[in-house]
Amino acid sequence: MITKKEILDILESYDRDSIAIATVCSHSSLQIFDGARKEGFRTIGICVGAPPKFYDAFPKARPDEFFVVKDYGEILSRADELAEKNAIIIPHGSFVEYLGAHNFMKLRLPSFGNRHVLEWESDREMSRNWLESAGIKMPRQIKNPEDIDSPMMIKYYGAKGGMGFFVVKNYSDFRKRINPAEKYTIQEFVLGTRYYMHYFYSPIKKDGYALSRGTLELLGIDRRVESNADEIFRIGSPTELAEAEIYPTFVVTGNQPLMIRESLLPKIFDMGEKVVEKSIDLFGGMIGPFCLETVVTDTLELKVFEISARIVAGTNLYISGSPYSDLVEENLSTGRRIAKEIRMAKQMDLLPEVIS
Amino acid sequence: MITKKEILDILESYDRDSIAIATVCSHSSLQIFDGARKEGFRTIGICVGAPPKFYDAFPKARPDEFFVVKDYGEILSRADELAEKNAIIIPHGSFVEYLGAHNFMKLRLPSFGNRHVLEWESDREMSRNWLESAGIKMPRQIKNPEDIDSPMMIKYYGAKGGMGFFVVKNYSDFRKRINPAEKYTIQEFVLGTRYYMHYFYSPIKKDGYALSRGTLELLGIDRRVESNADEIFRIGSPTELAEAEIYPTFVVTGNQPLMIRESLLPKIFDMGEKVVEKSIDLFGGMIGPFCLETVVTDTLELKVFEISARIVAGTNLYISGSPYSDLVEENLSTGRRIAKEIRMAKQMDLLPEVIS
Amino acid sequence: MITKKEILDILESYDRDSIAIATVCSHSSLQIFDGARKEGFRTIGICVGAPPKFYDAFPKARPDEFFVVKDYGEILSRADELAEKNAIIIPHGSFVEYLGAHNFMKLRLPSFGNRHVLEWESDREMSRNWLESAGIKMPRQIKNPEDIDSPMMIKYYGAKGGMGFFVVKNYSDFRKRINPAEKYTIQEFVLGTRYYMHYFYSPIKKDGYALSRGTLELLGIDRRVESNADEIFRIGSPTELAEAEIYPTFVVTGNQPLMIRESLLPKIFDMGEKVVEKSIDLFGGMIGPFCLETVVTDTLELKVFEISARIVAGTNLYISGSPYSDLVEENLSTGRRIAKEIRMAKQMDLLPEVIS
Repeated sequence: MITKKEILDILESYDRDSIAIATVCSHSSLQIFDGARKEGFRTIGICVGAPPKFYDAFPKARPDEFFVVKDYGEILSRADELAEKNAIIIPHGSFVEYLGAHNFMKLRLPSFGNRHVLEWESDREMSRNWLESAGIKMPRQIKNPEDIDSPMMIKYYGAKGGMGFFVVKNYSDFRKRINPAEKYTIQEFVLGTRYYMHYFYSPIKKDGYALSRGTLELLGIDRRVESNADEIFRIGSPTELAEAEIYPTFVVTGNQPLMIRESLLPKIFDMGEKVVEKSIDLFGGMIGPFCLETVVTDTLELKVFEISARIVAGTNLYISGSPYSDLVEENLSTGRRIAKEIRMAKQMDLLPEVIS
Repeated sequence: MITKKEILDILESYDRDSIAIATVCSHSSLQIFDGARKEGFRTIGICVGAPPKFYDAFPKARPDEFFVVKDYGEILSRADELAEKNAIIIPHGSFVEYLGAHNFMKLRLPSFGNRHVLEWESDREMSRNWLESAGIKMPRQIKNPEDIDSPMMIKYYGAKGGMGFFVVKNYSDFRKRINPAEKYTIQEFVLGTRYYMHYFYSPIKKDGYALSRGTLELLGIDRRVESNADEIFRIGSPTELAEAEIYPTFVVTGNQPLMIRESLLPKIFDMGEKVVEKSIDLFGGMIGPFCLETVVTDTLELKVFEISARIVAGTNLYISGSPYSDLVEENLSTGRRIAKEIRMAKQMDLLPEVIS
Repeated sequence: MITKKEILDILESYDRDSIAIATVCSHSSLQIFDGARKEGFRTIGICVGAPPKFYDAFPKARPDEFFVVKDYGEILSRADELAEKNAIIIPHGSFVEYLGAHNFMKLRLPSFGNRHVLEWESDREMSRNWLESAGIKMPRQIKNPEDIDSPMMIKYYGAKGGMGFFVVKNYSDFRKRINPAEKYTIQEFVLGTRYYMHYFYSPIKKDGYALSRGTLELLGIDRRVESNADEIFRIGSPTELAEAEIYPTFVVTGNQPLMIRESLLPKIFDMGEKVVEKSIDLFGGMIGPFCLETVVTDTLELKVFEISARIVAGTNLYISGSPYSDLVEENLSTGRRIAKEIRMAKQMDLLPEVIS
C-alpha cells in the first residue's frame, strides 16, 4: 500500500496552478467534470478502449482530455503519466470497483479523500463496527440463519449495486435461495421508507456546522430505484410470486429526488457528525462526500443499513443544486463541492489535508 | 380569542420599515427564512431550549436572530418581546401543533393569514362542510362502521402527519383495529394516485388568475412519502401481512416532486377557486398558501381527501422554484411568496388585509 | 394528404421575421409557449370555445394570442388564418389526438417535425417493425392468447394515455377481461423499473453527439405516474383484488423526475441513434423530440415497450432544465429546444429541413 508520505512527494512535484481533476468515465463523472470546470480545473476522463461518445452530447461535462487505457489495471502502471498532468483522482463507486479496492490502495497518485476509508467501508463487519461504535442505530443482524423469524435481507459480501441481495421470511426460504458457496450477512428488513443522505465533510472549512475540526454539510437526499423490487407488486405479492419462482431483486437502476421532514434534520446532522468523529478516531477521518443509507420508520426512527464513504450516484440528480445545497450556495453539485474543496485547500496551502 | 382589532393595534405600533418574519424552527422554516431574506426582511427563529445547530449548515436560511423559549407556551407570554421586534408570525403545521390551535388563537402577534381558518381546517366535519359546500368532490364518508364493505381509511380526530390512520376492508377488520376511546372518521379509500397541490391565494394582487377579489396561483405539487405504506409491499400484501399483525401505516416522512397532466389544470384551478370563494363566505377568507390533498382516479376525477390551510412541508422541495412557479417568476418558493405578499401589502398599505 | 411541396409553398409566403409558434392549449403547451417566448417568438394558443383561464396564473407561459375554434376540426378549415399569422405548428400528443391523426396529415400549415412519423408511431405493428429492424430489444409479443403463460400486458389499438391497458396472467384471465370487439396486442410484461427517455434529434445541428447527419441529445428522463396501478398495492395484491373484481389500470395522471445509472448512457445513446438512423431509411427521418419508453431489468437490459415521436408530457417536469439538459445549456426545456431549433433553422436558411 502506498504511504501518505509517498503521495505527498508526488504532490510536491505538481504544478499547483495547473492541477487536473481526473476520474473514470462512469458513475458520477458528468457532475465531477462539470463541477471541476466550474471551479476552473482542467479535467481528464479515464476510459477503456476509446472515449465514450456520449460526452459529446453534454458539452459542459465533456472532459478536456481523455486518458485511454487498455484495461483499468493499466491506470496503476501508467500513473506517472497522470502525475505529469498534475492529476488529482476523484474516486467513485465504479472507479474503485473496476480497479479493485486492493489496487486502488496502491495507486501512485494523489486521490481526493482518505483512501483508508475503503477498508472500513468495503467490509460489512468493519463498517458495522464503525457505525455502531459511533452510536448509529442499524438494522439488527443475526448470525444463525435458523433464527430467521421475520423478514430479513440477505446480502452477499462485495455485492455491488444491489445485485445479490434478497429477502427471506424464514429458514426454509433461506435454504431455498442461499448459495452456500458465498459469504453473506443476515440483516433485519426494517419496514419504512428509504432515504439516502448525501453529506460532505470538510476538514478545512471553518464556517458552518462545526465538528471537532472542520464542518459538515448536507447536499441532498435521494431514493434509489431498484429493479425489479420497485414495480414487481404490479403483478403479484412476494408470496404469490414465489410460487412461480419470481423473486424481488434489488439492482440499482437509477435515483429519484426526495426530501425529508425538516424536524428530522437535527437527528440527521447528529448522525453525520458521529460518523465523522468516529472515523477520525478510527483511521484519521473520512474526507469529502459520504452517504448514510437509511430507513425512516413510522415512529420516525432512522436506521442506517449502509454507508458509502465517497460520492454516490444519487447526487447525479442535483447537478444544478438540490433543495438543500441551494441553501448553502447556488448551483452546487457534489461534484462541484469536491472541486471547490480542492481549490480551497490549494489556496489555503492545505492540499495534504484533503488528499491521500 | 384575540380580535382583529387588537392585532391591528399591535401592528399600529410596528416600525413598518423593520418588520421581521418569525416562525418556529421546524417544518418549512428553512424556506420561510430564506424567502424572507430574499425579500429583504430580518428573520427570527423561535426555538425551545437552544438554537438548533443545523441552521449553521444552511447559511442562506439561518435566521438573523433566535428567540429561545423554555417551551412553546412561552411564546404566548413573551409575545410582547416579539412585538417589540416588529415580528409577523408565519404559522406552519408544526407551529400550530406545538403551540396548540387553541393557544394559537390567543397569540398577541400579527400572524400571516386568517387565523379563523384554523377552526375550519382542524375539525374534520367543518372542513368537509366547507369543501362540499364549495362543490368539491370528496371520498364518501360513512357513519356506521357496520356499513364498511370496501376499503376504508379510518382517521382519528387530530391525527397529525398521518399517525393514527389505517385502512380496513370490512367491519371485522375495523373491530379488530379500532381504539374505541378515540373519535374517528370513516372515509372511502379512493383508488388512484395522490397529488398534493400547493396553491397561493392573494387577496391584494391584481394581475393573474382573478377571483372575486384577488388572485390564485399554483406554486407546486408533491406526493407525500408515507412510512411504512410506501414500501411495505416489498415484504407482502396487506392480507398476507395482516396474518402476522403487520399493518401499513401512513406517517409522513418526506416528500417527492411530481407534476400532473396539463389537461387537468382547468379543473385544479377551478377547485382552488371554489374553495377560496367559499372560505370568503364562511369566515372572511383564507389568505396565502393552502394545499388540496387529492387522489386522481383512472377516470381522471380528482377527489379531495383533506385541506391544509397554510404552508405544507411538500413545498420544501421547491426552495428554488418548481416547474409551476418557474412560470410565474424565477426562484419562487412558497416561503418567498409569503414574504413577497407581506412586502407587497406593506407597500400598498394593505397589511391588515393579509394578517390577523 | 398534404405534400411537402405544398407546405413549402405556404412557408414561402411567410414573413420569416415574425414567425409565430402555435399549438393546442394542453399537454405540454406551457413549456412550448414559455420556450418559444424565450427564443423570441410570438405564440398562439389554439383552444376550443374560450381561452383557458389557467394561463393567467402562469404569465411566462401565457400565449400572446388565442386562436379560438368551435371544435378542433375547425383548425383544418381555418388554417389559412393561422398561415397569415406565420404560424408554425408544434404537434403534441393531445393536438394529434384531438384533431385526429388522419386530419393532422391534411393540415395546411408548416408543422415542426416530419408528419410521416405519425403513421409509423400510431400503428403498433409498424412501430414494432421500425424499432426491431433498428436493433432495439422489445418485450416479446405473442399472437395467440392461448399461449399466455406469464404476465402479459394487453393493449387495445389506439388506446391513449394508458386507458385500455391491462395485465393478465393466463388465458382464463384473458377471456374474462377482453372485449372481443376491439383490436389488441399481447405483450410480455417485463419485470423491472420504467424509464422514459426524452431525446432530441436535430438534422441541422453540427456540434454534439453526431449521427450520420445531425446530432442527438438527451434532455431528460421521467417516470409516468399511472392510476391506479401505482398505489393499488396499498389495499391488496392483484390476485386478492381480482376476487373483488378490482383491477390495476394504467391511466397516466402525471410524471415524476428520475435519473438513470450513468453507466447505461452509452446504451441509451446507442438506442436513440439506431432509432433515428432507421427512421431516416424508412420515412426520411424523425425530427425533434422523441421518447423511448423502457423497462430496465435487473440485469441492466433496456427493453423498449413504446416510442413517442414527438414531445411527451414527461418533459413538463423540466421547464427550467433537467440534470441532463443542464449539461447542454442552462434553462433548456424541450419546449425551448424546439423553438431554438426553429430559430437556428431560420438563421441557417434551413427551415424546410425541420418542418413538414
